[in-house]
Amino acid sequence: MFQGIVQDLIDELGMLPGVGPKSAQRIAFYVLGAESASIERLASTLTEVKRRIRFCEVCGNIAEEERCAICLDERRNGELLCVVEEPRDVFAIERLREYRGRYHVLGGAIDPIGGVGPADLRIQELQDRVSQGGVTEVILALDPNVQGEATSTYIARTLADSGVEVTRLASGLPVGGDLDYADEMTLGRAFAGRRAF
Amino acid sequence: MFQGIVQDLIDELGMLPGVGPKSAQRIAFYVLGAESASIERLASTLTEVKRRIRFCEVCGNIAEEERCAICLDERRNGELLCVVEEPRDVFAIERLREYRGRYHVLGGAIDPIGGVGPADLRIQELQDRVSQGGVTEVILALDPNVQGEATSTYIARTLADSGVEVTRLASGLPVGGDLDYADEMTLGRAFAGRRAF
Repeated sequence: MFQGIVQDLIDELGMLPGVGPKSAQRIAFYVLGAESASIERLASTLTEVKRRIRFCEVCGNIAEEERCAICLDERRNGELLCVVEEPRDVFAIERLREYRGRYHVLGGAIDPIGGVGPADLRIQELQDRVSQGGVTEVILALDPNVQGEATSTYIARTLADSGVEVTRLASGLPVGGDLDYADEMTLGRAFAGRRAF
Repeated sequence: MFQGIVQDLIDELGMLPGVGPKSAQRIAFYVLGAESASIERLASTLTEVKRRIRFCEVCGNIAEEERCAICLDERRNGELLCVVEEPRDVFAIERLREYRGRYHVLGGAIDPIGGVGPADLRIQELQDRVSQGGVTEVILALDPNVQGEATSTYIARTLADSGVEVTRLASGLPVGGDLDYADEMTLGRAFAGRRAF
C-alpha cells in the first residue's frame, strides 16, 4: 500500500522483535512527524552500537572493550561462575545486586530442531575456563524450558570430571503467583524440591 | 542498569509509540545480535526518510516531491475532497480502493486540552481550496471521537456559506461486531441513523 522509502521503513521496522506490521506502520508515521534531530540521534545510536559493542573475549557478555565491565572488575569473586544463555540474562541477574561472581554466556541453548548443537555454543570455552583452575562452583542459570534443561544436562556431564561443584537455580512456584495457576511441571518441581519449614 | 550506549539505545527506542521499557530492551538486544548490514540499513532508512519525506503543499499528505502522488494524479476526481486528520488516514482510505477523489489532511483535530486550536490545523488552507472552486462535496472523515466531532462541527460551520455540500462518514455498528459489545454512543448512533431494509 505504501510506496518507496516509507514502505522500506515499515518493512525494516517490522523485522524488529515484537513489532508487527501494524506497529511498524504506527512507528513509521511517528518517525515522519517527529523532530529530525531525535530521529537522527536514533539512527546514529543504532550505527554506533553496532560499531562499538562487541562480545567479551572471556565471558561472551556484551562489552565496549575486549573484556566486559564485569570481567574487568577485580572485586568479583572468580570462584563462582554463573552460566547463562544470553547477555540479557546477565543483566537480569545483575539487577538483583546479589550475585558477586563471574559469568559465562553461552550464546544460546542446545536446540536440535533449530539446528543449534553444543559446538555452536561457548561450551568449549567454558571447559577451558574451568580447567584453568580457580573456579569452585559452576551455577547453571539457563532458561527453565526444554532447550535450557538439555543444555544444563549436557554441561553438567561435560564438567563431571572437572572437580568443580555444578549447581542449578531452584525450580518451584514463582513468588506472588497463584498455586492453582501454576502448570503441572512447575507444581511437580515445587513438590519434589520441598524443604523443611 | 545498562550502561553507556546500550542504555542510550534503550532510551531512544523507548520513545517510539507502543515500545515500552521492556520491548525497548528486547529490541536493543536484538540489535546487538543482528547482522551489522541490516542495522546499518535501518539507520540509513531512518535518516533518508527524514531527509526526503515532506508534506504535500496542496493537501498536507506525505510526499517525496512538492506535491504528493495523489495530488499529482490527473485521474483523481477534483470535485470530491475528503478531509482527514493525519496522513495515515489517507492510507487507510486508499486501502479500500473505492474513493477516487482528493484529500485534505488537517494535521490533527481541535483539542482545547491538548492546546490545539483551529489555527494550528490546515483549516484556512481547506477554505482556500474550496473557494478556488471546482469542489462540489467535502467529505468529513475525522476520527469518531470528541476531538474529531468538534473539528467536524467547526469545519461544517466554516464552509456553511461556501455553496459546497458537506457530508460525513456514517456512524453505526461496526461490521462483524457483536451488538451487545457496542458502546452506548455507537448503538445510539446506529438507531438514529437506521435505514429502510
